Amino acid sequence: MKTSARNFIKCKVKEIHQGIVSAEVVLELADGQQIISIVTKNSVEDLELKPGMQVNAIVKASSIMIGTTD
Amino acid sequence: MKTSARNFIKCKVKEIHQGIVSAEVVLELADGQQIISIVTKNSVEDLELKPGMQVNAIVKASSIMIGTTD
Amino acid sequence: MKTSARNFIKCKVKEIHQGIVSAEVVLELADGQQIISIVTKNSVEDLELKPGMQVNAIVKASSIMIGTTD
Amino acid sequence: MKTSARNFIKCKVKEIHQGIVSAEVVLELADGQQIISIVTKNSVEDLELKPGMQVNAIVKASSIMIGTTD
Amino acid sequence: MKTSARNFIKCKVKEIHQGIVSAEVVLELADGQQIISIVTKNSVEDLELKPGMQVNAIVKASSIMIGTTD
Amino acid sequence: MKTSARNFIKCKVKEIHQGIVSAEVVLELADGQQIISIVTKNSVEDLELKPGMQVNAIVKASSIMIGTTD
Repeated sequence: MKTSARNFIKCKVKEIHQGIVSAEVVLELADGQQIISIVTKNSVEDLELKPGMQVNAIVKASSIMIGTTD
Repeated sequence: MKTSARNFIKCKVKEIHQGIVSAEVVLELADGQQIISIVTKNSVEDLELKPGMQVNAIVKASSIMIGTTD
Repeated sequence: MKTSARNFIKCKVKEIHQGIVSAEVVLELADGQQIISIVTKNSVEDLELKPGMQVNAIVKASSIMIGTTD
Repeated sequence: MKTSARNFIKCKVKEIHQGIVSAEVVLELADGQQIISIVTKNSVEDLELKPGMQVNAIVKASSIMIGTTD
Repeated sequence: MKTSARNFIKCKVKEIHQGIVSAEVVLELADGQQIISIVTKNSVEDLELKPGMQVNAIVKASSIMIGTTD
Repeated sequence: MKTSARNFIKCKVKEIHQGIVSAEVVLELADGQQIISIVTKNSVEDLELKPGMQVNAIVKASSIMIGTTD
């Protein structure tokens, strides 16, 4: 399957915090930067996400904002 | 200013494609991975974005999906 | 690839309207209901979208609102 | 009230899973396909959502991605 | 129709800038603060938006971030 | 830091409802209108949000829909 989402960022699952309907998944880029994702608890189970697993963070281009560094 | 957005990913502006109301900004991570962002044309002008500039890609945690790599 | 996006709705491409950086894609469900999607112009080209093609409309669960019918 | 949201998809409430601040609502299209929506727990109460109720899944066009079926 | 969107902010249309598929609509709150919305060009036509018209800016709660003022 | 997000709406924190991974923050505009935001529980802690605190509601332009008032 190919999708219209423009962004597939390679990272690794670092931690998973389960809630009742949502879950917070902490991802880590190769250079150590962290990415935080909120998905449904069911997604974590369906994808069998576990710390150490290689995944892609997927983001639609219209969901990405830009900030200056100063 | 601190914000509730959980994700600030360091990257560099690579290319800017201007439309009439929107603009596509191609960003590059340190390891060469690309991130595509759609912002308003006015944002590109207000932030004075130019190729080579260091910026942050900012994403709300609830806008990040996860995909398996297989 | 499996993704955390909970919604994959089967539909068919009906029309494509190209802008400069964005494109509006009109999709059609089996029962004739229409779905409108805004993606980047580059996505339309990469996926080689054409009228009549079978695709999935993919939506993250947190992007779906609910309205009453009255 | 008319809104700029381009997508109103007719469906029926199938299941509701309540969390503390969020709720997962499982919707069903006429052809049996399911749609999963995450809304606030307060929305479920205000709209008095119940299994069997006819509703619309409402989605902004820029929140819809497209995936190929192969 | 009632919707699960938690935010209906009363404002007035100030300016409309049409693109090819998207349009930028500048809204104004009672206290003079501005809100910028990107919708499809077709939405502007369907809602017959015009400067001076009273409207609601509608936002899903999960799309609102919070920033400190310092 | 300047960001591409077009909307910074001045408001005050009114109430905070903590869940396990998410939190619902009720904000109030100067004219009394309310804004509801869902952020991660960690954001509430990092920003040290408390009732009475002045903040900005930040929204990307593409997340704002428009509704007519009739």
